[in-house]
Amino acid sequence: MSKTIKEDVKKMKLAAPFMAASSNDERNGALKAVVKALNENAAEIFAANKKDMEFAEKNNISSAVMKRLKFDEHKLADVTAGIEQLVLLPDPIGKTTLARELDEGLTLRRVTCPIGVIGVIFEARPDALVQISSLCIKSGNCAVLKGGKETANTNKVLFELIYKASVSAGLPEGFLLQAEQHSEIDELLQCHEEVDLLIPRGSNSFVKYIMDNTKIPVMGHADGICHIYVDKEYNENIALDVIVDAKTQYTAACNAVETLLVNRSIAKEFLPKLKEKADKAGIELRGTAEVGDIIDVKVIDESEFREYLELIASVKLVDDVDEAAAHINRYGSHHTDSIITENDCNAERFMQLVDSAGVYRNCSTRFADGFRYGFGAEVGISTSKIHARGPVGLEGLVTYKYKLTGNGHIVGDYASGKRSFHFKDLF
Amino acid sequence: MSKTIKEDVKKMKLAAPFMAASSNDERNGALKAVVKALNENAAEIFAANKKDMEFAEKNNISSAVMKRLKFDEHKLADVTAGIEQLVLLPDPIGKTTLARELDEGLTLRRVTCPIGVIGVIFEARPDALVQISSLCIKSGNCAVLKGGKETANTNKVLFELIYKASVSAGLPEGFLLQAEQHSEIDELLQCHEEVDLLIPRGSNSFVKYIMDNTKIPVMGHADGICHIYVDKEYNENIALDVIVDAKTQYTAACNAVETLLVNRSIAKEFLPKLKEKADKAGIELRGTAEVGDIIDVKVIDESEFREYLELIASVKLVDDVDEAAAHINRYGSHHTDSIITENDCNAERFMQLVDSAGVYRNCSTRFADGFRYGFGAEVGISTSKIHARGPVGLEGLVTYKYKLTGNGHIVGDYASGKRSFHFKDLF
Repeated sequence: MSKTIKEDVKKMKLAAPFMAASSNDERNGALKAVVKALNENAAEIFAANKKDMEFAEKNNISSAVMKRLKFDEHKLADVTAGIEQLVLLPDPIGKTTLARELDEGLTLRRVTCPIGVIGVIFEARPDALVQISSLCIKSGNCAVLKGGKETANTNKVLFELIYKASVSAGLPEGFLLQAEQHSEIDELLQCHEEVDLLIPRGSNSFVKYIMDNTKIPVMGHADGICHIYVDKEYNENIALDVIVDAKTQYTAACNAVETLLVNRSIAKEFLPKLKEKADKAGIELRGTAEVGDIIDVKVIDESEFREYLELIASVKLVDDVDEAAAHINRYGSHHTDSIITENDCNAERFMQLVDSAGVYRNCSTRFADGFRYGFGAEVGISTSKIHARGPVGLEGLVTYKYKLTGNGHIVGDYASGKRSFHFKDLF
Repeated sequence: MSKTIKEDVKKMKLAAPFMAASSNDERNGALKAVVKALNENAAEIFAANKKDMEFAEKNNISSAVMKRLKFDEHKLADVTAGIEQLVLLPDPIGKTTLARELDEGLTLRRVTCPIGVIGVIFEARPDALVQISSLCIKSGNCAVLKGGKETANTNKVLFELIYKASVSAGLPEGFLLQAEQHSEIDELLQCHEEVDLLIPRGSNSFVKYIMDNTKIPVMGHADGICHIYVDKEYNENIALDVIVDAKTQYTAACNAVETLLVNRSIAKEFLPKLKEKADKAGIELRGTAEVGDIIDVKVIDESEFREYLELIASVKLVDDVDEAAAHINRYGSHHTDSIITENDCNAERFMQLVDSAGVYRNCSTRFADGFRYGFGAEVGISTSKIHARGPVGLEGLVTYKYKLTGNGHIVGDYASGKRSFHFKDLF
């Protein structure tokens, strides 16, 4: 058992240029073969999932998590429908995004291409394995997948089906790899010569661990401290409904709201109503001393505001949009933040000043999601400002290269003034 | 003197959203003011540069470096012409790149915006300071600049003129900062909460040091091991001229060629001619034992091939495009690699398989440069596949945010099936 994941990843690096050279037809053919294989082997998948579910039940896993582990006919139908949508999407690679004649006979083209080798570490959700694999296939990337251990049996069956179907359809051997042991994550983090991008999904501390322990570029997000700011001119129903949705609709999600900022001038009228609504929804409010003077809350300092991921929200008063934005930029996590306002200027200023991947007006922070943005699927949500930001679909899995074709052109001729560039864009 | 750069960078972080909110007119106005200030104070700039040049002369700096340190009327004319071109370019920020109605009254827009705070550490070239500052101004970014110490006097004058002119024209105070001490680089590397992107330019070891000692994303390149592969069906004149240009036109540049790969079937006819041409051009060839059997070279192993940055090139024989690409992908630095071939299929396969920012046919690797690509200017060349690749101009200094506007929309309504998305693209 001395085989390490490093050896497989090295082979994958060699396969990556051939994966990148595959045609859209080949990749779509592989995706169709995957759908067929999943449908034809549904019984085997469900049987493996039953084992995972039984094991989870024995270990008293919460029903919310159980729901995510489950892979039944509905989930199968969802993921195969997703793959069929992917097949219909235009090829994300091989697109010429710039074509410029630099001089007679010297033509520059910028052409999109896959990133290469991507490592994705994701939570125990078998549908995520299928979605991530198919996004990588469509975008011509090789990928190392490591899913949560709670669905190890389901993942193993799904991975084998997807891999075999794709290779039979013509994709290069070794283009997809599943890591099954947790210890392999640390090995993967060392593969900076082979892996071009890591996409970790999971808990805050896990993502931070990844970011701090690898030289590979990491795309994703650690914290998800989302804010809702209720402005002076606000619609009360919108404010209350959006806050309750953003806090309770899926409390453990990264795009759930954690901190409420309220315009000081409306605090006396709004806070009691917020408190009433929060009590009904089972949300515990905590707030600064000033908030505590108006409603009955546990008083905390703003330095204690944090990502709760449970039915708790922090409350603070601010003077205006600028102060709200300053608080969000300082204490937030650049994920998604919303303003509740009827004032167009204030909405625009909030969206301008807040330095987050998602800046919203009069709607719930929970909309921050690739499916809800109409991307079909997402590999993750990025709070980085480099490369891809927000929910990341196919576009975030693609880079480009510059292709320059000449006929013996040398730089010396341009340096000496013998020739000069004329920069003619070809489209 | 306890003042640290960290304090200034923190203030810059607070200024960044206001810099991002500046209008194209304000930024163009600032650029025009910069041109005026530089022209009106040319005598002061040249006097400062004279001090730098005198000091360099005393220290026996090579004439090649001296040429870069010099900032005279020609360089001033070049950089001001560059700024005037920048003014004419369309605003890179505030562009809507996606507009989609997710549902009635719920509209998603993806809008380009500046990255925020950028740190650029660059070599001793006063014109680089002007170019980098103006690219940052045009793209609405705040920037910390650290130039080479050999031009400290020139940099100081240029920085003061650019900063004062821009702030007088309305850009936020503290949007641009110059670090003058080398020790401040280490301080800057610690500012991962404030700085969004670092762009180091300079020697291989310096860039590696930066990459290994910061949590801030780094864009740039360390090595520049560029290759030229001479294929079986080749034009001899093109091969020889391109190789000599790529090696000698600017030997110390990252895009100079370091390794020559030659198709085995043409080695006996081509290598003697290469040797003759190299001797004339003062290029020392080193090669594998097999190469040594045909021409008189110092025999080295391919593991000894490296970035020489002087008039030396390594030579190796390969069987075909696939073997050439495999060598380049393994030993190269993903910068720029060229094939010399008359065969269209081989050219296409080379460009497909080689995993580099620039893949060229029948032209010199020295073309890898923002000016020669018609970008007007560059902040650096990236060998990363994440974010920006190759020469990086305005586009690489820009990210985007998602703006979502609703009217009380909550996710609960979509989860329950009460409402559903209709995803209507608005353009």
